[in-house]
Amino acid sequence: MSLPDAFHEIAKRVSNRGRWGADDEIGTLNLVTDEVVREAAACVRTGRRVPLALPLRQGGVQTGMIPGRVDPLHVMVQINQEIFGPGTVACSDDAVTMSLQAGTHWDALTHASHSGRIYNGRPAGTITAHGGAEFSGIDKARHIVSRGVLLDVARARGVDRLDGGHAVTPEDLEAAEDFGRTRVRAGDIVLVRTGHVRVLLAGDKHAYAYPSPGLSIRTPEWFHARDVAAVANDTLTFEIFPPEIDDLWLPVHALHLVEMGMLQGQNWNLEELSTACGQAGRYAFLLSAMPEPFTGGTGTPVAPVAVL
Amino acid sequence: MSLPDAFHEIAKRVSNRGRWGADDEIGTLNLVTDEVVREAAACVRTGRRVPLALPLRQGGVQTGMIPGRVDPLHVMVQINQEIFGPGTVACSDDAVTMSLQAGTHWDALTHASHSGRIYNGRPAGTITAHGGAEFSGIDKARHIVSRGVLLDVARARGVDRLDGGHAVTPEDLEAAEDFGRTRVRAGDIVLVRTGHVRVLLAGDKHAYAYPSPGLSIRTPEWFHARDVAAVANDTLTFEIFPPEIDDLWLPVHALHLVEMGMLQGQNWNLEELSTACGQAGRYAFLLSAMPEPFTGGTGTPVAPVAVL
Amino acid sequence: MSLPDAFHEIAKRVSNRGRWGADDEIGTLNLVTDEVVREAAACVRTGRRVPLALPLRQGGVQTGMIPGRVDPLHVMVQINQEIFGPGTVACSDDAVTMSLQAGTHWDALTHASHSGRIYNGRPAGTITAHGGAEFSGIDKARHIVSRGVLLDVARARGVDRLDGGHAVTPEDLEAAEDFGRTRVRAGDIVLVRTGHVRVLLAGDKHAYAYPSPGLSIRTPEWFHARDVAAVANDTLTFEIFPPEIDDLWLPVHALHLVEMGMLQGQNWNLEELSTACGQAGRYAFLLSAMPEPFTGGTGTPVAPVAVL
Amino acid sequence: MSLPDAFHEIAKRVSNRGRWGADDEIGTLNLVTDEVVREAAACVRTGRRVPLALPLRQGGVQTGMIPGRVDPLHVMVQINQEIFGPGTVACSDDAVTMSLQAGTHWDALTHASHSGRIYNGRPAGTITAHGGAEFSGIDKARHIVSRGVLLDVARARGVDRLDGGHAVTPEDLEAAEDFGRTRVRAGDIVLVRTGHVRVLLAGDKHAYAYPSPGLSIRTPEWFHARDVAAVANDTLTFEIFPPEIDDLWLPVHALHLVEMGMLQGQNWNLEELSTACGQAGRYAFLLSAMPEPFTGGTGTPVAPVAVL
Repeated sequence: MSLPDAFHEIAKRVSNRGRWGADDEIGTLNLVTDEVVREAAACVRTGRRVPLALPLRQGGVQTGMIPGRVDPLHVMVQINQEIFGPGTVACSDDAVTMSLQAGTHWDALTHASHSGRIYNGRPAGTITAHGGAEFSGIDKARHIVSRGVLLDVARARGVDRLDGGHAVTPEDLEAAEDFGRTRVRAGDIVLVRTGHVRVLLAGDKHAYAYPSPGLSIRTPEWFHARDVAAVANDTLTFEIFPPEIDDLWLPVHALHLVEMGMLQGQNWNLEELSTACGQAGRYAFLLSAMPEPFTGGTGTPVAPVAVL
Repeated sequence: MSLPDAFHEIAKRVSNRGRWGADDEIGTLNLVTDEVVREAAACVRTGRRVPLALPLRQGGVQTGMIPGRVDPLHVMVQINQEIFGPGTVACSDDAVTMSLQAGTHWDALTHASHSGRIYNGRPAGTITAHGGAEFSGIDKARHIVSRGVLLDVARARGVDRLDGGHAVTPEDLEAAEDFGRTRVRAGDIVLVRTGHVRVLLAGDKHAYAYPSPGLSIRTPEWFHARDVAAVANDTLTFEIFPPEIDDLWLPVHALHLVEMGMLQGQNWNLEELSTACGQAGRYAFLLSAMPEPFTGGTGTPVAPVAVL
Repeated sequence: MSLPDAFHEIAKRVSNRGRWGADDEIGTLNLVTDEVVREAAACVRTGRRVPLALPLRQGGVQTGMIPGRVDPLHVMVQINQEIFGPGTVACSDDAVTMSLQAGTHWDALTHASHSGRIYNGRPAGTITAHGGAEFSGIDKARHIVSRGVLLDVARARGVDRLDGGHAVTPEDLEAAEDFGRTRVRAGDIVLVRTGHVRVLLAGDKHAYAYPSPGLSIRTPEWFHARDVAAVANDTLTFEIFPPEIDDLWLPVHALHLVEMGMLQGQNWNLEELSTACGQAGRYAFLLSAMPEPFTGGTGTPVAPVAVL
Repeated sequence: MSLPDAFHEIAKRVSNRGRWGADDEIGTLNLVTDEVVREAAACVRTGRRVPLALPLRQGGVQTGMIPGRVDPLHVMVQINQEIFGPGTVACSDDAVTMSLQAGTHWDALTHASHSGRIYNGRPAGTITAHGGAEFSGIDKARHIVSRGVLLDVARARGVDRLDGGHAVTPEDLEAAEDFGRTRVRAGDIVLVRTGHVRVLLAGDKHAYAYPSPGLSIRTPEWFHARDVAAVANDTLTFEIFPPEIDDLWLPVHALHLVEMGMLQGQNWNLEELSTACGQAGRYAFLLSAMPEPFTGGTGTPVAPVAVL
């Protein structure tokens, strides 16, 4: 079995292989220029900050559906411990075991491979148990601050949330641009709101996992045309799941991460942001979404914040 | 044994107990108003972004000196796994076990207690193995974006790094203000550069741990007078270690976290920022340093970024 | 709320507090004398070995019902890594994160406390985040080898497995003794087979967890009268769950661990042993069930083996 | 670079490939017949039990020398938690993160590979991040109970411990047989005492790690000739380290695990056993050393016990 022609044709059209040189490891993050960041800062009008991360805890997002992916196990290793003797200042310390993709996260470019290759044509075999991703690990994405744009597809369609079977199309994205009166530009980080995270917030993590609305296989070309730096949304699977084409699983992952070299984010809580943008009547803002610099990581928890 | 009078006198002078109400859990983060954030955004002139986190990996900061505190063990749980069958898109996933205070981190207000109390007079016993910190956990500090000011004490003194025995005093801080021609204001996050992290970067983690330059017991009053929102530096112990007063261990921790309710950050790499501020001739910037929202966490890894 | 008189009356009758001195930390393991072990070895006739542990893996026993208790996350940290250069001997290494009570395990005496006390009248507060159990940790139970006796309650009653609501009584235990023509003696480790683990092996971990057959509150007195060294069975909850008396939760845990100082084991797979004993016509054997010596542990995974 | 001819010649002589069929996954454990186990049980004369595991805790054996190998981080996830309400029976639960080879352990046959092969000629590529070892994982070694024989090489040579540079030879092993007046037989588990663990017990884990006495490259042929089931000793590296032949690293690992299919154990504390055997004047005993059944594990912690 191999990937169908339909996939390879899109892949050819969106490929950024070699675009930033043979040594490049960060792909579309190259599009975030200093100028883009200056414009992002200029979006700050009220100073309102909106955090976009879900809580990190047991009973979080994971259901066991994805092998090896576990919710954070947060543990105390010291509780009010008077290390230096009775009556001294006491300390509490903690530790965690978690999948880097457990909650609100970025996929590193190396989270997906196909046909034996990762981004920029490097061999997939450069990811090993000994050190993780030698190239394009999340530690290479050193700073992720840019202009963020919320494409509130659910609101633009007049619903609280999209149905599980809804594939978000380029037409949906453009309707959301119109709704927000904001045009996506080169270097932007686009947040696509489906509203599906409401299912999780209401307590049903299984229905959140599957079936899920998400990006259509037709959207990577749109993001490519707009020269977007990264895309995140409020679902577990990111793309529509189950997929639009039989037996073609995770095509958007492969197009974004492997072909375009574009980071994607999942499980972002865009509910408060939707309200804030609606109230402000503005859908562009400063977005800081710094990866934790795990050496060789193929993903990272992230605590994004939008500043309006 | 109990804490000496000298400590309790300072404690009285800097206490913010009740200042933001009996229910308050975030202390001096209350000082970061929307207006402060707008002014922070206005500091962005070039768009240059400087990340401040050390790599997260085995062989990181920890030496085993602090019981239970371990470097990240980053592991791959899937490597190019064709979950949906041979020839399909492949995924790589990873996980980590780490102390929340392992690398570049924030101490939550609950990281320290004394005399049986945490911030705002609550009982220290509200921190338990079952759920961690019920009050003032790191999850309560939902957004940390403000104006950052680098007080480059090492440069102001004309040295690459301060000696292990150097206690950073209010006079040092003011000399650094003068050096940077920037006055610290209410709501600022102050980054105090000792240069000591160079010892770590040069490969000697034991000398980095001990002895360490750091903040003097006299500085909390200065931060209190300036109404600072948070303070971070480039050492493991944050305050001078071993301490200035015999048998008075971690007094600055207790004053900042318990009395003032002020977050403090450790192991921040301020080297590139020192260069950038020197080049720009500006020592104030937009700082985003979002905590990962661990429910009940007494600390968090953080990947701070300064935008100049 | 406090524990009912019914509990305290039994507690008084079965208490071993002080029986082996005020310093004792191992309770009924004191009953396993060298002579008992010699007799255990004499039980070996065929040399057949029957392992009693369930596999340790994701998708094991845990359902999330018990806060903080997680299945093993087994990860590879090296895969065929040629540490010493290309073409050299390669190594694979692995690591695990798991609850000590995740699979087949022993509860240490410190797994339960009541009324502020653990075994031998020590304060429950001697268990801390810093070091775990100071007294009666699983590391103190240095060797667990004795005569094992299978009380096959299910078979004795002519069923494959007991129903979820079945409380195993002293009468059940004696009927199983008769069925196996073996009398339980001082120092024995008794394995009580309910057959309930079949529900788990058939794939329904939720039904396995709850409701569960298990030991009746009436059995501790029977085990006490027989001077049993330890008891294990093939359920998650060990005792009947939900309990026999309204609002009296885990009374058998409290009686065994706190009052008698008797280890108990859960999630033991007794299916093959049931067959083996049936075939051999013998229900006594050499049992080795060594705890992993976690310093201060309140439980331990165990890989027991019966030798017939 | 490839392995030298000297290695391949020995490999040919000791290979058990195909000896127990093409499907075999357990190698020399096949030699532990029921009869061997009966004879092992017959070795029990006094009933004295000697545990052989080192404590599992932070500050254990590991130094950071081996990438990814970490000491146990034992944490409490519940401490005297009254899950069912105030005044009810309270529970304490714990968890651990550890390398399976952290302390006293067995290497699974899949711990080593060479020339792209594991035991019985299978491809090394059958070990993956997704599931670990598909073949010859530690879960396949379901029961390890046999006759144990202590070859007390240190005592036989009249020293407390062998020097770091001492390669234990077949002549040493035979001298130890003579010293103990016990002949090693088919199916035995041989424990080779160097006394080197004393260095660790005295607090110097670095000197314990390196340089280390251990088995000579000449011993695999001796074990092969005697049809030994498994071998363990009281060192970190098992074989002499640094190695006897320049640039031929870990040859004994490769010969035992890959060629012979023979389990080997490390970091076993044989000090008390040495005393016990000396006192009893007997060097053969019943040995139970059950692996924890980690699915796909390439190693396992083990808590061995000798019964004399």
